[in-house]
Amino acid sequence: MPHIDLLPGLPGIRGPMAFRPETAKPLNELVDVLLRGPHTLSPGERELIATFVSAQNDCRYCQTIHGAIAAHHLNGDEDLVRRVKHDFQHAAISDKLKALLVIAGKTATGGKQVTPADVDRARQLGATDLEIHDTVLIAAAFCMFNRYVDGLATWAPDDPDFYRQRAALVAEHGYAQATLQGAAR
Amino acid sequence: MPHIDLLPGLPGIRGPMAFRPETAKPLNELVDVLLRGPHTLSPGERELIATFVSAQNDCRYCQTIHGAIAAHHLNGDEDLVRRVKHDFQHAAISDKLKALLVIAGKTATGGKQVTPADVDRARQLGATDLEIHDTVLIAAAFCMFNRYVDGLATWAPDDPDFYRQRAALVAEHGYAQATLQGAAR
Repeated sequence: MPHIDLLPGLPGIRGPMAFRPETAKPLNELVDVLLRGPHTLSPGERELIATFVSAQNDCRYCQTIHGAIAAHHLNGDEDLVRRVKHDFQHAAISDKLKALLVIAGKTATGGKQVTPADVDRARQLGATDLEIHDTVLIAAAFCMFNRYVDGLATWAPDDPDFYRQRAALVAEHGYAQATLQGAAR
Repeated sequence: MPHIDLLPGLPGIRGPMAFRPETAKPLNELVDVLLRGPHTLSPGERELIATFVSAQNDCRYCQTIHGAIAAHHLNGDEDLVRRVKHDFQHAAISDKLKALLVIAGKTATGGKQVTPADVDRARQLGATDLEIHDTVLIAAAFCMFNRYVDGLATWAPDDPDFYRQRAALVAEHGYAQATLQGAAR
C-alpha cells in the first residue's frame, strides 16, 4: 500500500505524478529530452541505460516499464534487455554502449566512483562529451525516479502485457503526453 | 578536472547546466517548484532537507551551496545548518521536520528503506501527505543532483563567501533565473 493517499489504479510513478502535477511536468520534460530527444544514441540505447540503472537499484516498476520501452524500440527483443540487465558485457550491444553502462552503473553507486579511466575508455570507443554527459544524467535521474517510486511504496502490476501495452503508448506519444492520457483514464 | 569539456569558471552543477541547457531547464523548474514554490514547509526547511541529503551523499558542492541557501533563509544561522547535517535529532528544528529528515535519509539510502512506521511517525507529528511526498521527492532529486555533480567530476570553490554570495542571488531570484545570470557572467 502506498505511504500516502494516491489515486488507485495508477501504478508506479503515475500515482505520485497525478498527486503532484506541478513536479510531474518538469520530470516528464526531463525524461522526454534525455530519452527521446534528438541524439546520437538511439532511444533504445538510452532506455537500456535507464533500465540497467533501475535494475541495479532494484526498482521493479522502473526496470520493467523502461525495459519494455527499450524492447519496443529494439524490435521487441526482450532477451537483449534481460541480458543487458544481468550481464551487459556479453550482450549484443556496441562496445561504446558497454563502456557507457560502466559509467552509468558507477554513477548510480556514487558519482565519485566514475574514474578518468572509465571516461577515457568510453571516449576511445567513440563516445562524445554529450553522450558521456547524458549517460551520467540518465543514471543520476533514474536514481531519483527509482527512489521516488519505491520511497512512496507505489505498486507495480505483475502482468508483463501491462508493461508492453504501456510501452507502446509511451514510445509513440512520449512521457508527458502518455502521463496526461494515463491520468485521464 | 571535469570528465568532459565544461566552461571554466562555472562551479558545481552550473558547468553541466551551461553545457546542456535542454536538460538544465526542467532541472531548474523542478527545484524551483520543490524548494521555493508555495508550501507549508518553509524554503529554509526544504533547503535543510536538500542539504542533509547532499551531506549524506558526500557531495561537497551541493551540501555547501544548499547549506548556504538554507542559512540565508534561516536568518544566517549557519550553526543550525551544521547541526542538521551532523546531528539533526538534537538540532533546534521541529519534531515534524526531524521525522521528515528520517524519511529523507532513508529515501537517499534506498526507497524501500522507508517504512510505514516512519511515515506514521511523521503524520502523528503533523506532516501532511504533500509534505511527505515532497520530502521523498526532494531527497530523491538530490540523489540525482549529487550524482550529476560528482559523476562529471565538477569542481567546487573552497571560499565560503562564494557560496554565501551565490545563496543570496538564488534566494532572491530563484534557481532558473540565477542559472541564466550565472551563465551570462
